[in-house]
Amino acid sequence: MRTFPAGQLHDLGVELFVACGAPDAEAEAVAAHLVEASLMGIDSHGVVRYIWYVEQCLAGRIHPGARVQVLRDGGHVALVDCAMNFGQIGAGFMVDLVRERARDGGIAFATSRHCHHVGRLGAYPQALAEAGLFGFAVANSQRHGHFVVPWGGREGRLATNPLAWAAPTAGRPMLLDMSTSMTPEGKVRTALHAGQQLPEGQILDADGLPTTDPGAFYGNGDGPPEGAILPFGGELGYRGFGLGLLVEVLGASIAGVPLGAAEPAVAGDVPYINGFSLLAIAPGAVTGDGDRFAMLTEELRAYVTSSPVAPGHEEVILPGEREFRTLDQRQNDGIPLPPETCRLINTVAEKLGVRANL
Amino acid sequence: MRTFPAGQLHDLGVELFVACGAPDAEAEAVAAHLVEASLMGIDSHGVVRYIWYVEQCLAGRIHPGARVQVLRDGGHVALVDCAMNFGQIGAGFMVDLVRERARDGGIAFATSRHCHHVGRLGAYPQALAEAGLFGFAVANSQRHGHFVVPWGGREGRLATNPLAWAAPTAGRPMLLDMSTSMTPEGKVRTALHAGQQLPEGQILDADGLPTTDPGAFYGNGDGPPEGAILPFGGELGYRGFGLGLLVEVLGASIAGVPLGAAEPAVAGDVPYINGFSLLAIAPGAVTGDGDRFAMLTEELRAYVTSSPVAPGHEEVILPGEREFRTLDQRQNDGIPLPPETCRLINTVAEKLGVRANL
Repeated sequence: MRTFPAGQLHDLGVELFVACGAPDAEAEAVAAHLVEASLMGIDSHGVVRYIWYVEQCLAGRIHPGARVQVLRDGGHVALVDCAMNFGQIGAGFMVDLVRERARDGGIAFATSRHCHHVGRLGAYPQALAEAGLFGFAVANSQRHGHFVVPWGGREGRLATNPLAWAAPTAGRPMLLDMSTSMTPEGKVRTALHAGQQLPEGQILDADGLPTTDPGAFYGNGDGPPEGAILPFGGELGYRGFGLGLLVEVLGASIAGVPLGAAEPAVAGDVPYINGFSLLAIAPGAVTGDGDRFAMLTEELRAYVTSSPVAPGHEEVILPGEREFRTLDQRQNDGIPLPPETCRLINTVAEKLGVRANL
Repeated sequence: MRTFPAGQLHDLGVELFVACGAPDAEAEAVAAHLVEASLMGIDSHGVVRYIWYVEQCLAGRIHPGARVQVLRDGGHVALVDCAMNFGQIGAGFMVDLVRERARDGGIAFATSRHCHHVGRLGAYPQALAEAGLFGFAVANSQRHGHFVVPWGGREGRLATNPLAWAAPTAGRPMLLDMSTSMTPEGKVRTALHAGQQLPEGQILDADGLPTTDPGAFYGNGDGPPEGAILPFGGELGYRGFGLGLLVEVLGASIAGVPLGAAEPAVAGDVPYINGFSLLAIAPGAVTGDGDRFAMLTEELRAYVTSSPVAPGHEEVILPGEREFRTLDQRQNDGIPLPPETCRLINTVAEKLGVRANL
């Protein structure tokens, strides 16, 4: 696998998105987001998305440059129209909004309509933590992504519905970014193409029976899934189901969007990809001491990581630490891209008259 | 096991807490909370707690009637001194506070200091959901409850750190109330006393090795734990660890309380049991339509529960539904109490000059 300097991939992303019609600053923001995800090792949400994003622009499903705006402003709660611009633009607007309002009044919550793919969910609470705030985010997906069964069920009713939170420390933030299902669909397809079995306890076949065979998930072909993914938690999967529902309720129902419903309740409602919501709390407004929060989370970090390591493990690290280390390493060594990803990026670039040279 | 009418146990609880010095209304509130937990089948947080609560009152660790007050008021964020009154009184004060302020401004968050045991965590977001709001709560515990290892570690660094959320539907609320560890310590001790093994993947022995033997958790005696409990999630336990840290950060660090720290950073800081925090969001303030949220969550309920049942399961139900059914059943049939629980309640009652007659 060849590796590429982050700067080269960033510049290419900017060129692609500008060619799609994005204003310079927005193209920069989207490319920076995707390159950072690749740097952190979250390749599924990284530079590989250049392909789909360009295709979505060409198909008129992403509206580069569309005006993101507050639809309804409650002061500390806001409903934001992300206008089917790149999801990163809508979500970035919401980061700025809740950051400023939480600094003013201690807390702010924003939720979205018409939001495209927000990419790496953890990026948004991370940005809040880097500003000294506590951040929490959820993102559900529209119905076509409902591969995850409710606890006890055998038909998908939720998407992989990630949640993420972050808090500042003396160093890099604590950062949890997790799906509420056992696995993303992407990993099932990867296993299928690689001819590999999945670990036990992740998927059901078309009859609702446990299987480790990705082919059984796809109805023994390569078509649309006929099986389903289990909620996070194994024998305690009702908890993961409850967390997935939390993401659905907080990412969609609260914004007035009938995402989980069998049919849209609002006639003529336009499509979306992620129902994204974001909460910010300013700890300084709670205690009156703006520095105390990061001091305490740093003490917590030291205390938690002071646990001796259990047999079979290598170290005790905070959520997010592994990704930040990968970021440091890939900033030096470059971002690896599989040949097929390079080929597909070259192909979509060509459609835009851009020479990608990957 | 004998069963008792809820009303009888309620009246007894009121009499006990009044005898401890609680004002009538506060004794009523605490008894009602504990009886409801028993009705819902959450016996570990129910009437059995009469014993410990009375003992804590007699030892001067619960301060019945102590004045709960806002220490610092940021409007939509508040720091509340629960004054070591019964945890239910402090937490109930916080429910009233965030409910009113979320109705005014769309959102409110309260966190606590000096909070005793809040009991069934789900009760608080449930109360918000019954008022039409979205509710989210966390509760950490002070250091003596740190049985849960960080991912990869073998010494406890977090408590079982539950989180809970609730939302209204057309019927009873959706209500998730979950620990972020594989099991509470109470279940390990119950297994020890019953001579039973635990399921795999829940605990570590004193050497940090997986075990199913509760005796190995207690150092092969009945003393203080030498083993530890694993975070929720099995092979994906780093997620449960990250959720446990969320509870710690949001339940304690944000209130300025150094709960996870090896030594209290604030000299003279008084004890507490739970670091409790509560968030309320008024969906009507987000969309401008106060009824829309419960309409959409009801659609979501219908959609999710329409999944066919998987082999090996009996039905698909929402989080909380099982507990609400138990509540209906026990309101008719009474609350079962083991003989030992009856004996211990009778004994603490006698210390107060109350005849419990259980």
